[in-house]
Amino acid sequence: MSIFTNIKLIAMDVDGVLTDGSIIMSSSGEELKAFSVHDGVGVKLAHLSGMTTAVITGRSSSVVVKRAKELGINEIYQDVVDKELALEELLEKYKLKDYQVAYIGDDLNDLKVMRRVGLKIATLNAVREIKDIADFITEFEGGKGAVRDAINAILEKKGVLAEAINKYCNLK
Amino acid sequence: MSIFTNIKLIAMDVDGVLTDGSIIMSSSGEELKAFSVHDGVGVKLAHLSGMTTAVITGRSSSVVVKRAKELGINEIYQDVVDKELALEELLEKYKLKDYQVAYIGDDLNDLKVMRRVGLKIATLNAVREIKDIADFITEFEGGKGAVRDAINAILEKKGVLAEAINKYCNLK
Amino acid sequence: MSIFTNIKLIAMDVDGVLTDGSIIMSSSGEELKAFSVHDGVGVKLAHLSGMTTAVITGRSSSVVVKRAKELGINEIYQDVVDKELALEELLEKYKLKDYQVAYIGDDLNDLKVMRRVGLKIATLNAVREIKDIADFITEFEGGKGAVRDAINAILEKKGVLAEAINKYCNLK
Amino acid sequence: MSIFTNIKLIAMDVDGVLTDGSIIMSSSGEELKAFSVHDGVGVKLAHLSGMTTAVITGRSSSVVVKRAKELGINEIYQDVVDKELALEELLEKYKLKDYQVAYIGDDLNDLKVMRRVGLKIATLNAVREIKDIADFITEFEGGKGAVRDAINAILEKKGVLAEAINKYCNLK
Repeated sequence: MSIFTNIKLIAMDVDGVLTDGSIIMSSSGEELKAFSVHDGVGVKLAHLSGMTTAVITGRSSSVVVKRAKELGINEIYQDVVDKELALEELLEKYKLKDYQVAYIGDDLNDLKVMRRVGLKIATLNAVREIKDIADFITEFEGGKGAVRDAINAILEKKGVLAEAINKYCNLK
Repeated sequence: MSIFTNIKLIAMDVDGVLTDGSIIMSSSGEELKAFSVHDGVGVKLAHLSGMTTAVITGRSSSVVVKRAKELGINEIYQDVVDKELALEELLEKYKLKDYQVAYIGDDLNDLKVMRRVGLKIATLNAVREIKDIADFITEFEGGKGAVRDAINAILEKKGVLAEAINKYCNLK
Repeated sequence: MSIFTNIKLIAMDVDGVLTDGSIIMSSSGEELKAFSVHDGVGVKLAHLSGMTTAVITGRSSSVVVKRAKELGINEIYQDVVDKELALEELLEKYKLKDYQVAYIGDDLNDLKVMRRVGLKIATLNAVREIKDIADFITEFEGGKGAVRDAINAILEKKGVLAEAINKYCNLK
Repeated sequence: MSIFTNIKLIAMDVDGVLTDGSIIMSSSGEELKAFSVHDGVGVKLAHLSGMTTAVITGRSSSVVVKRAKELGINEIYQDVVDKELALEELLEKYKLKDYQVAYIGDDLNDLKVMRRVGLKIATLNAVREIKDIADFITEFEGGKGAVRDAINAILEKKGVLAEAINKYCNLK
């Protein structure tokens, strides 16, 4: 049984994972983020397969909340100092074990939480230290389809991708 | 007679086709999109060749309307749940058959409508499932000239590209 | 005597040349453009070598005026329907002949004016028809240093690049 | 003893180093900059290793101040005409010598100050003249992790990278 097949919850960082890691600021004090429309479809496929999704980020931005709600991401943790604590809350709430969680990360603040979970996924643009411990490295960069790629891989190895795609297309 | 030569209407998705698929959001609630100036010339070449153009998108944005009007795109469908219904409206309005329509898509919500039309075009950045059914894959990514590339290919195979370019340059 | 050595005026398009061709629009009606800081240094090097610079664009944007003024570009033509007319005005004002002008372009609306001038420069991202008639294709894309590259090439072939760089560095 | 091991202060340009060199302007007069979340972690690693950081830029933008403060960059010089003067102020304030300073640059206005310092670092997107005098060229472009890459290299050659990473992860 592969480490992919156990996954019931997909947690992920925001900057560098759901975005390309660009912190875009304007002179009037606005912050902008660029998300991928393909990732959005990926999150919906995960939900159609009965999976739970969560974002855990050390920063805070109203943009993250807006996009996460648009996608229906189940849990949003912002301003997180200790990502392991957030993980433990998720495990308790959803009655899950570490090996049932996948985490998609790209930088050092993801290192400790990634060491805990069953499936460690690094984005193509992740730093060396994250890629070194990853079970799977996405084909696309953060903000360019990395999350879609990770979800596709999980659903495919669980044997439920084709069914999720069918459901998605029939909803449309 | 090639599948290209019958085309009288070119329909297309927006995110990932007229843009690179980035959903750009600001903290004040604005949404931004980045279009290609080359695609704009492509749409004008299509019109100069007597073709009709349409955008069909599942999302909604005032930016799409503004850009589409600037380009003179003939039909704009937003917030579309069922893209096949939009296609059928277009077929009726313009008295066309499926084989006279080209559709440029990039993701699963384009799958069903693409299966219907005569010429299925995937952008370079399209997901695997769309590329698998495509008759033609553009050389450039969405938002980077994919639509121009698709229109060039259609006009060239119809033998009307040189004439459209001449008309365009003489208007300038 | 090479076609480069005669050049006294460098004219250029905006979208796709001073930018990467992205037309960025926001839901509140703003338009954004992304210029290259390297191109800015290039324009200053051209001026330090006694050359005149001009932008000629078919579109109109307050952003273009602001950036062009910041760079000290000598002449700004916006909303231009016939770029040849703008060229003729420039030739008369600066008492120049066609062979003393370089034009940097990327798309069909640059075709006619480029056929007129002494040095035809296409950006790396230019469409096929522009590259086909170009004397020189830049190593970088528009908005990513294409203009700097073109100016470097002109100043180098005129044998004045090192002097311009020295002047520039001593001003700093 | 390598030129890397002496470094106590890391100074850097902004446009093309902490950003990809894009000057993004909006029609309402705003200016935007895109920074890298990975660079932010790099600056924190430098500080955890006891190093001082400074930005020295010839332009001026409230965005630079905001991002630099967010990162805790120690010294911010904007609107700088003579970067050597800024360097001399830094040397005096921190009681340092030229050979204890690294400078990360990308264009001609960095040339004179870079000639002075002990460790000259060019970003991957730097112009030829800067790369020609560089001791080290980053693997990533400005705004895409160039600063992180430069700091990693310095800390690694000083033999303090692993310790800085441990400290960083335990703070999280």
